[in-house]
Amino acid sequence: MTAALGELRSRFSGVRQGEVASYIPELRRADPDAFGLALVSMDGHPYSVGEARTPFTVQSVSKPFVYALALAELGLDEVSAWVNAEPSGEAFNAISLERGTGRPANAMVNAGALVASSLVPDTPEHPRFDRILAFLSRFAGRPLDVDEAVYRSESVTGDRNRALAYLIRSAGRLPVDPVTATQTYFRQCAVRVNAVDLAVMAATLAHGGENPVTGDRVVSEEVAAQVLAVMATCGMYDASGEWLLRVGLPAKSGVSGGLIAAGPARFGLASYSPPLDAAGTSVRGRAAFAALSQRLGLHLMLNPALPGSTVTLVTTGEDPLPGGGPVAGETGKVAVVAAQGALDFTAAERVLHGLDEAASGGAPSVVLDLARVDGIEPVAYAMLRQGLARLERAGHHVALADPAGRLAAPPGGGRPRDGGPPRFATRAEAAARCAREGGR
Amino acid sequence: MTAALGELRSRFSGVRQGEVASYIPELRRADPDAFGLALVSMDGHPYSVGEARTPFTVQSVSKPFVYALALAELGLDEVSAWVNAEPSGEAFNAISLERGTGRPANAMVNAGALVASSLVPDTPEHPRFDRILAFLSRFAGRPLDVDEAVYRSESVTGDRNRALAYLIRSAGRLPVDPVTATQTYFRQCAVRVNAVDLAVMAATLAHGGENPVTGDRVVSEEVAAQVLAVMATCGMYDASGEWLLRVGLPAKSGVSGGLIAAGPARFGLASYSPPLDAAGTSVRGRAAFAALSQRLGLHLMLNPALPGSTVTLVTTGEDPLPGGGPVAGETGKVAVVAAQGALDFTAAERVLHGLDEAASGGAPSVVLDLARVDGIEPVAYAMLRQGLARLERAGHHVALADPAGRLAAPPGGGRPRDGGPPRFATRAEAAARCAREGGR
Amino acid sequence: MTAALGELRSRFSGVRQGEVASYIPELRRADPDAFGLALVSMDGHPYSVGEARTPFTVQSVSKPFVYALALAELGLDEVSAWVNAEPSGEAFNAISLERGTGRPANAMVNAGALVASSLVPDTPEHPRFDRILAFLSRFAGRPLDVDEAVYRSESVTGDRNRALAYLIRSAGRLPVDPVTATQTYFRQCAVRVNAVDLAVMAATLAHGGENPVTGDRVVSEEVAAQVLAVMATCGMYDASGEWLLRVGLPAKSGVSGGLIAAGPARFGLASYSPPLDAAGTSVRGRAAFAALSQRLGLHLMLNPALPGSTVTLVTTGEDPLPGGGPVAGETGKVAVVAAQGALDFTAAERVLHGLDEAASGGAPSVVLDLARVDGIEPVAYAMLRQGLARLERAGHHVALADPAGRLAAPPGGGRPRDGGPPRFATRAEAAARCAREGGR
Amino acid sequence: MTAALGELRSRFSGVRQGEVASYIPELRRADPDAFGLALVSMDGHPYSVGEARTPFTVQSVSKPFVYALALAELGLDEVSAWVNAEPSGEAFNAISLERGTGRPANAMVNAGALVASSLVPDTPEHPRFDRILAFLSRFAGRPLDVDEAVYRSESVTGDRNRALAYLIRSAGRLPVDPVTATQTYFRQCAVRVNAVDLAVMAATLAHGGENPVTGDRVVSEEVAAQVLAVMATCGMYDASGEWLLRVGLPAKSGVSGGLIAAGPARFGLASYSPPLDAAGTSVRGRAAFAALSQRLGLHLMLNPALPGSTVTLVTTGEDPLPGGGPVAGETGKVAVVAAQGALDFTAAERVLHGLDEAASGGAPSVVLDLARVDGIEPVAYAMLRQGLARLERAGHHVALADPAGRLAAPPGGGRPRDGGPPRFATRAEAAARCAREGGR
Repeated sequence: MTAALGELRSRFSGVRQGEVASYIPELRRADPDAFGLALVSMDGHPYSVGEARTPFTVQSVSKPFVYALALAELGLDEVSAWVNAEPSGEAFNAISLERGTGRPANAMVNAGALVASSLVPDTPEHPRFDRILAFLSRFAGRPLDVDEAVYRSESVTGDRNRALAYLIRSAGRLPVDPVTATQTYFRQCAVRVNAVDLAVMAATLAHGGENPVTGDRVVSEEVAAQVLAVMATCGMYDASGEWLLRVGLPAKSGVSGGLIAAGPARFGLASYSPPLDAAGTSVRGRAAFAALSQRLGLHLMLNPALPGSTVTLVTTGEDPLPGGGPVAGETGKVAVVAAQGALDFTAAERVLHGLDEAASGGAPSVVLDLARVDGIEPVAYAMLRQGLARLERAGHHVALADPAGRLAAPPGGGRPRDGGPPRFATRAEAAARCAREGGR
Repeated sequence: MTAALGELRSRFSGVRQGEVASYIPELRRADPDAFGLALVSMDGHPYSVGEARTPFTVQSVSKPFVYALALAELGLDEVSAWVNAEPSGEAFNAISLERGTGRPANAMVNAGALVASSLVPDTPEHPRFDRILAFLSRFAGRPLDVDEAVYRSESVTGDRNRALAYLIRSAGRLPVDPVTATQTYFRQCAVRVNAVDLAVMAATLAHGGENPVTGDRVVSEEVAAQVLAVMATCGMYDASGEWLLRVGLPAKSGVSGGLIAAGPARFGLASYSPPLDAAGTSVRGRAAFAALSQRLGLHLMLNPALPGSTVTLVTTGEDPLPGGGPVAGETGKVAVVAAQGALDFTAAERVLHGLDEAASGGAPSVVLDLARVDGIEPVAYAMLRQGLARLERAGHHVALADPAGRLAAPPGGGRPRDGGPPRFATRAEAAARCAREGGR
Repeated sequence: MTAALGELRSRFSGVRQGEVASYIPELRRADPDAFGLALVSMDGHPYSVGEARTPFTVQSVSKPFVYALALAELGLDEVSAWVNAEPSGEAFNAISLERGTGRPANAMVNAGALVASSLVPDTPEHPRFDRILAFLSRFAGRPLDVDEAVYRSESVTGDRNRALAYLIRSAGRLPVDPVTATQTYFRQCAVRVNAVDLAVMAATLAHGGENPVTGDRVVSEEVAAQVLAVMATCGMYDASGEWLLRVGLPAKSGVSGGLIAAGPARFGLASYSPPLDAAGTSVRGRAAFAALSQRLGLHLMLNPALPGSTVTLVTTGEDPLPGGGPVAGETGKVAVVAAQGALDFTAAERVLHGLDEAASGGAPSVVLDLARVDGIEPVAYAMLRQGLARLERAGHHVALADPAGRLAAPPGGGRPRDGGPPRFATRAEAAARCAREGGR
Repeated sequence: MTAALGELRSRFSGVRQGEVASYIPELRRADPDAFGLALVSMDGHPYSVGEARTPFTVQSVSKPFVYALALAELGLDEVSAWVNAEPSGEAFNAISLERGTGRPANAMVNAGALVASSLVPDTPEHPRFDRILAFLSRFAGRPLDVDEAVYRSESVTGDRNRALAYLIRSAGRLPVDPVTATQTYFRQCAVRVNAVDLAVMAATLAHGGENPVTGDRVVSEEVAAQVLAVMATCGMYDASGEWLLRVGLPAKSGVSGGLIAAGPARFGLASYSPPLDAAGTSVRGRAAFAALSQRLGLHLMLNPALPGSTVTLVTTGEDPLPGGGPVAGETGKVAVVAAQGALDFTAAERVLHGLDEAASGGAPSVVLDLARVDGIEPVAYAMLRQGLARLERAGHHVALADPAGRLAAPPGGGRPRDGGPPRFATRAEAAARCAREGGR
């Protein structure tokens, strides 16, 4: 992985296009040659090359995370009343307020980010910005701080953001006063990070809201999915559609040269390279991400399960017992359906379909073997429980090989359900029981 | 599954909002109470309830499929020169032409769909519309036909589409003349389908371009992914962002009441219910899809692999042989890394990380057990080959348990690579070899 | 005047900016060096220099005149229901349809011109285009014809206009079918004129709708004023505001190099020079008109009456009779108020104010001398009749010196009003009568 | 006049549409039934009815006057660099900044008014707002003051204007800081006026920049014309085109219920009635102005000189001397051209045309009689001087009847030109001289 990143860095470090952001003196000081790349896996393994530990201010890359904080505090419905989630087809600093309501188009453009930041609660014990800084730190897995010089610079030059704040306020769409809103937002943008931090932050979103390095659950799976969805449609401003089409990853760029992308359930990716294209995105970062996606097949819509190589395995047979004796007496047959991997809706559908086929194939007895199953989603749990009950009602003998007790109680710690087929540690035991029952 | 769909149908069939499209008399005749739902799994199992076999014209639901045909014929770069892929933030019939160039915003709005349709080659032996009809039929898995009455109706009333065609032509962005372009487009919209057809079509996109019912490879995985990406950002017109945020599935609606959504590698979903909301989307279809996504956890960004329930399993140990004798003599240890499921980039990273840990933990010999691997992507193949070579160069003894020969030759049928670690049918054999080598 | 035009031509004929319109081959053939200027006074005197008799197609300069025809046929309210009169702030071929209704912004942009042209009645005896051609000919004062080559060229290349026509039709805002609408419009644009023709046409608008050369009343004063108002706000596309600010004249440009401006009640101006600026306006024409306006003080808003040099002259006195004897006996005084020029609302207000002052100054008798009045507007007629009646009711003796009988009957040929003050041919006679009456 | 205004007031005082502006409490207190109308003539005669002396804050009606101040201080070119003059087609508080530059569309919308106000110089001795207040007072002809309660109210609620100021500032288009800019602008809007004041202010613009009541020259004729031009195209926001088409007068409305219109060289008009339509214009004011314009023929484009009733009179003859003997001896003829009224470009053209006709008719001697001329514009002065010189060069004998010496020296006080035809007090003397000369 490190080698792959290193190769990318070599390939694109010679690119000379783009300009370092110059609207504030502090940003202009960035080294245009700095180029760091970092990737963090779902197991929390970090890989990085180049200037991946060089500190810079997070700028707009903070937007998805502060939006996540607003969602975590208020919920999607309340946040949506203040900020929409539609791509604006416009530049980062576009006005992008909804005709008629003044609601910002989305939380990835400045107007919406200002509102999202303002939605974070503010109490004497827990001032708004302290919450934001603490939250960003949990995403990064280490305490972050503010680059005060950059903050002061932005504060001096931030007339356009102040204008947006007043505009939103005048439409009754800003919950705090514009001066407070912009100060908080400028501080949020001036939080200091490095490329590895950003990769951990992106990986936390990709990992369903749990920081894969620290194990800290920062936001719920639901909030993580919501933030990734908005990054997918709105994260790259007016090039978001092209980006999702060609690169295929939810992403977010910042004016200081940072760029993140998330492969849901796969990885977090980040780069740092200050020269920006006309849209305000790091030129080298953009090129490197596109090349990596292309080369590693990271496109979100590329079939993640190879056709034919299913996560569930369905087998049926009259004598399915590996290395075992006969399981079916003269009076009947036993079919076995074995599943493996993580069972979600899709997998559960396959298992149920296999069970139905087995039953309709004439087998009076059916064994469901869950020994190689690693996890089960609530929806799959419910589907399997219902499917097995239906089989039993239809007169079939059913038994489970379920050494880990995955169908014993709902995942997530619910109360065990009553009833259900008898459970055994091995397929052989289960089949033996079925054979006995079937023989009766 | 059928039960789940039936339950949804019951829940929303009483909804009375929305209006049946009335801009042409033929559409106005649709039964407002008709409500069909269909889902097709990646194994090609169809589930349906209600009026899922009632024929209606495909209308805008044809757009992603004809875009797929253009992509398949010309490739993304050529198609992108004619049609952009940015959400327009505008209604279905918006003008949405790029300032300066006149390029339509995307292929999901009428302007872009007209161009995509016009990009399909037209030869005497294979006229353009014949290709389109044949292509849609392959997606559906059965021969489709045209509702001539609807075609004539649209042709009479299609002034706005004619206007778009002339407008695009005047910007030099239409490869055929406007009269031909609109006739082809009106015929394409008048192709007759039912909800099951649409579910199969959506499932074909979800299944990487291969029709899961017929086994026909209609488009490449790459094209399928591209189409899904554009559906994700642009498929629901000016509500695309909200839809991806809340429902989380690439989707497309049509004015005759059809609606499709695709769960990549999971399912194709379709509904039919004529009454439309203000945005031109089936009211009941929209509600049913949202509820289904919520209930079954279908959101694209929801972590499809449960945390902790990995598709690869990594184990190391000095004596890893199940039911076997010692594998390591006095002179060394053997570590075993076992993988399972489908190996993509993410899984390969995990395997490599496991191998590195094993090696750095002091084991001079390492076994990679691929017995329970169901498939391997090209990128994972390359990563593993490189990683194992690096381990060998570093002086480790490496052996494979690879009964299916997954690392013997590139997936997709490339030429076998020379060299690589010795392969064995079982873990025990591989470990024994390592132990021998290590002992030398 | 000719000298002034010649000087302008010399000054700007060397200007080399601009490009001859090339969107159709026929226009491309125009001589870029041709430069003609023409001015026609309200007395119908034509002045011209350079290529003022070179024929070219009228193109967009036809728009105000065909709009005038629509207004003349249907009236402003009906026409306004089809075409608005708001500046669009957009280019000549902009879509500019009103949000929600599809009504074109104004009749000076293509969209609105297409509609205006389509509003002209079409009957078997008087086909629509025949009416238009005849109407333009009356404006020009000579029979015009169509350049068929240009018409065919436009017809071939007019996709954008066809698009506009279909777009407007689809919004229900085009009274005829788009093919007919564009054909008529293309023919209208291909009518052949020269700069002198255009100056006569502009002079006809400036002269209240009556052709000052032929004496033909082409449209009513009201329609002429309406057309000039729309030219003032919309005639120069997205530079209309700047044009009215700096040049101060209602104007209209055409893509073939024609340009007209009208000084209401003063002159019609036209130029011909094919090279166009980015906005589609003749570069030399623009420069020449601006210079002429600046030099001759033609700005519409520049005070046309010099302060202090009023068109009415008010004098009062006890002995106002020039070269005459005493007019007032011992028993009273006679005041005389003399007016001159054309009496409109403003002038009438002054006269009435003078009469009131005279009366309130103690003069029991007042003479209103209209001998030097050249004309009187209906509103002024009514105001004076009422004012004089009020004086008489207040007990004053009033007499008129009104040799031309201007207050005898309403201007425009109404029935003579009964009563009113006695009328005399000279001031002396009127004063003598007053003195007599006052003495009684 | 008063009667006409009274009649209008009666006709529209019952209108109940519209809402009193309520965005600040102070404005909400206005009496919805108040309805005042005022008209001031070019001679400074004021006419008024109803609540024409009720004080209210000037609000947006201040915009043209502060724009005038900026023009007077900096000139049009400098002001145009900061504020454009194009109709925006948008509402009063629209953002309306030029794409690319951020320059406000025009000085009649808030964005442009903020900039115009900020362009007024600010020095310790003459602070910016003091200049504005003094300038508005000169327009009104009496010292105005500020309604401090309204100012404070606006200051508290003016977020949208603050937003505009920051937005313009961020584009580098605001010459002062946004806080200062908005404070000045809010004070300017809170200046207290009544309808008579506004009518005097409008009359001052109509009267070429000279207050017709006080005789104070507030701005140059040029600046007055520029302001009127911008009012004509932009004064009524997104209904400016319709207003100029139907009412035909440069106008400006304010949110407190004030409305002004100017008839160049004719009158200033104002009304006060607080209930506003959706566009923020006084409902009754709008109706009254439209009716007045219709009834009194005030439309700017309506031919102010009746056809046939010219301000110059041209006569020629062999024996033109009233009551005199023969003027031409045996050897020649004398032609006389007599002019009257105010001579501008148009009139001068007529005079010259008459002189040319006379000369070409064979008269070797020509008299130009200016006895009845009331004034002469510089351009007419130059045209006549040149035309007469040309006649003399062509061998004609020319003499002037110019008792007031109008052709003796340039109007406006320039140095007398040398030469020119001999001047006499009467036509007879001039003709006699010609006859003598012609006889030689």
